[in-house]
Amino acid sequence: LVLGLDPDPAKLWPAAIESLDDAATASGQNLNAPGECAARAVAAHCRLVIEAAGEHCVATKLQLACFERLGAPGWQALGSVVAAAREHELLVLADGKRGDIDVSAAAYAQAFFGETPSPFGPVPGLDADALTVNPLMGRDSLAPFVTAARVAEAGIFVLVRTSNPGAQDVQDQPLAGQGTVAEALATIVHQLGADGVGSSGLADVGAVVGATAPDHLARLRELMPQTIFLLPGVGAQGGTIDSLRDAFAPGPAGGLITVSRGIVAAHERVGGEPAAAAAAEAERLRAGAWSLAA
Amino acid sequence: LVLGLDPDPAKLWPAAIESLDDAATASGQNLNAPGECAARAVAAHCRLVIEAAGEHCVATKLQLACFERLGAPGWQALGSVVAAAREHELLVLADGKRGDIDVSAAAYAQAFFGETPSPFGPVPGLDADALTVNPLMGRDSLAPFVTAARVAEAGIFVLVRTSNPGAQDVQDQPLAGQGTVAEALATIVHQLGADGVGSSGLADVGAVVGATAPDHLARLRELMPQTIFLLPGVGAQGGTIDSLRDAFAPGPAGGLITVSRGIVAAHERVGGEPAAAAAAEAERLRAGAWSLAA
Repeated sequence: LVLGLDPDPAKLWPAAIESLDDAATASGQNLNAPGECAARAVAAHCRLVIEAAGEHCVATKLQLACFERLGAPGWQALGSVVAAAREHELLVLADGKRGDIDVSAAAYAQAFFGETPSPFGPVPGLDADALTVNPLMGRDSLAPFVTAARVAEAGIFVLVRTSNPGAQDVQDQPLAGQGTVAEALATIVHQLGADGVGSSGLADVGAVVGATAPDHLARLRELMPQTIFLLPGVGAQGGTIDSLRDAFAPGPAGGLITVSRGIVAAHERVGGEPAAAAAAEAERLRAGAWSLAA
Repeated sequence: LVLGLDPDPAKLWPAAIESLDDAATASGQNLNAPGECAARAVAAHCRLVIEAAGEHCVATKLQLACFERLGAPGWQALGSVVAAAREHELLVLADGKRGDIDVSAAAYAQAFFGETPSPFGPVPGLDADALTVNPLMGRDSLAPFVTAARVAEAGIFVLVRTSNPGAQDVQDQPLAGQGTVAEALATIVHQLGADGVGSSGLADVGAVVGATAPDHLARLRELMPQTIFLLPGVGAQGGTIDSLRDAFAPGPAGGLITVSRGIVAAHERVGGEPAAAAAAEAERLRAGAWSLAA
């Protein structure tokens, strides 16, 4: 189970706002800029969610858009959430869906896996364990990510068949040769990962496969037998864990089910304290995932 | 002509490093963190490039990967480069190639075109004039960008046929129905832009079409008659301005030729001061573009 964090400053847990007030009072600091305040509140919120539900998860997935919209303070908050995840022994998946020509892909790889040489010394990157990447620009746009991730003992998850309805517009289109665009992407993912298969039998190039379209799972698993599937779409987007059995063909580690709003906003459905509701929901989802993979 | 900025801290103009030293001495500040120093040097470099070559360009294109790899200080530098571009009356194209499910696409749109509501007041975004976006996830992933850009009187450029060799892997694949993946994307772009055609006859949804594969231009122009083409790939990637005539069918404003290393690193080819070489090269390219579009 992966704990998805896509913090909206307008929907934070109340305790996050309160902790910010306390911290400001204690330090005598006067936080004026909305960006500063919102970023600190977002970081506090994410830390609380990790403390509540982290023990039921193996990783946290950070939606970069939610940090980026807060500017430089948001990027600072991102770093502090990564630190919180590390403290709780969670892997960190940066959900950025980046993709660009080789030289720019290499720059993104420096941002997430490596460091950037400069006349002032190397500038450290985010040190993520994995990044989601977009393969529309083809193999040479993915190669720098694969290379850098391998050096850093990290991984990437390539979009293959996403969880949103618009996946039909491009990814599900049938190709003239055979298969669909998503199946062609799956073949690229399988090939890129072939040189990075670890002792677990799983490759370091993963695939994002939406949990909302389980019909695709068996075929994509066939095309990518050694690939870890990152499975978003359970909960708010309508997917269910029970439908994901095909993803786990290579064993329990073959699939990572990522749930964001389903855990963080569990209290809106069941009532009670946000932290307790999130913990209970994470525990329930984890049990479901394991029974499926067993 | 669009001035592309993809600053590498290891290849900055010497004057940028010097200006940083001067500023540090003058302020008595002790800049220790490499990220801080590198970000300031990058911002100084971009400002110098804009001062040198900006007058020959209508816009600047900022490669977000190059700022993101410097962390929070990099995002701060990005803001200061946007300010420098505004001072020189240049439009700002944020080259991020973002794309995600609707709620996350809306968050990116807040980051680049709008603002983010928070309990502490709205957090302003980057206020870009345009953002490059990746359409692999389909129409519903593009819609939030179109909506937000329209509200902000900005625009987006959707990847249709990129300039890198890997464009063949996915974008050039023939579909079972007719045309290629890129042509299907072109149709989506044309449809999305239909409601946003201004008095110029051009839509607010543009397309990224690489200058490295001019053979595609005529067909893509046919599918997107009202679309502004953003044309990267001239110079370092091997494209030439002379081959781009088909892009300008709707008139001079129908195409934006973007050149990055070709201008910024012109002194490496022709010698002399970086600023003078960049200015001369930008002037030359601009003249070439206009003669073509005329």
